[in-house]
Amino acid sequence: MPNDSYEIKPIGVIRSKLTDLADAPMQGDEGGYEAWLELTSEVAPGISGIRVGDSLLILTWLHQAQQDVLQVHPRGQLERPLTGVFATRSPDRPNPIGLHQVSVLQIEKQRVKIAPIEAIDGTPIIDIKPALAGISDR
Amino acid sequence: MPNDSYEIKPIGVIRSKLTDLADAPMQGDEGGYEAWLELTSEVAPGISGIRVGDSLLILTWLHQAQQDVLQVHPRGQLERPLTGVFATRSPDRPNPIGLHQVSVLQIEKQRVKIAPIEAIDGTPIIDIKPALAGISDR
Repeated sequence: MPNDSYEIKPIGVIRSKLTDLADAPMQGDEGGYEAWLELTSEVAPGISGIRVGDSLLILTWLHQAQQDVLQVHPRGQLERPLTGVFATRSPDRPNPIGLHQVSVLQIEKQRVKIAPIEAIDGTPIIDIKPALAGISDR
Repeated sequence: MPNDSYEIKPIGVIRSKLTDLADAPMQGDEGGYEAWLELTSEVAPGISGIRVGDSLLILTWLHQAQQDVLQVHPRGQLERPLTGVFATRSPDRPNPIGLHQVSVLQIEKQRVKIAPIEAIDGTPIIDIKPALAGISDR
């Protein structure tokens, strides 16, 4: 049986010029920014094999989201009916995990430059994966 | 600044005939099973708006994975060079989050039948999202 809860430790943090949630586009492909993924020294060996041009999925912990929300008006449009958060991309949800598909622009020892991403500066990164289409190649 | 850690509470559990990790395919599209997503009663209102035929991303907590692994031989093939886990889909990684793209087969009040998925029976579910392609429609 699963535990009642699990502990998630960030593997790094988003460094972006985007600092205010009010300026953030709803999704990265609607005008997302370039950003650096700054990893902790502890997990830095985990990025070996990532190459410029790769398509990655970045999982973040949306630390400013509300975790007690179960239904929303999609994209904040009040004329749209209340919809379960699991049928939407609302950041407000029980476990506020953000999922961002990005391209790799530059790689250093402990950080990776990517775009586009709508997450604000300081957002914790919790996992990095190759994009789904690339599964069978890795 | 991000916290040192966050608490993640499962929103439900995978119910599948697949009970042994040794029988699991590496990815759902390599022979995954049908399964039920059994949600807790607390979060059940969050699935309203999900429809049969929808394409969803299921996020799981791979509770049997090793969290202290940073590099692996991809797909367990020893002739392939050690590669950072963030460049692979290895379940072993610091935060062992599984990401599964599935189709919705059936919906009940508190559970959703989906396929294909390679996660074993009892795997905790931590989030459900519409697949990326569907973003702008929701």
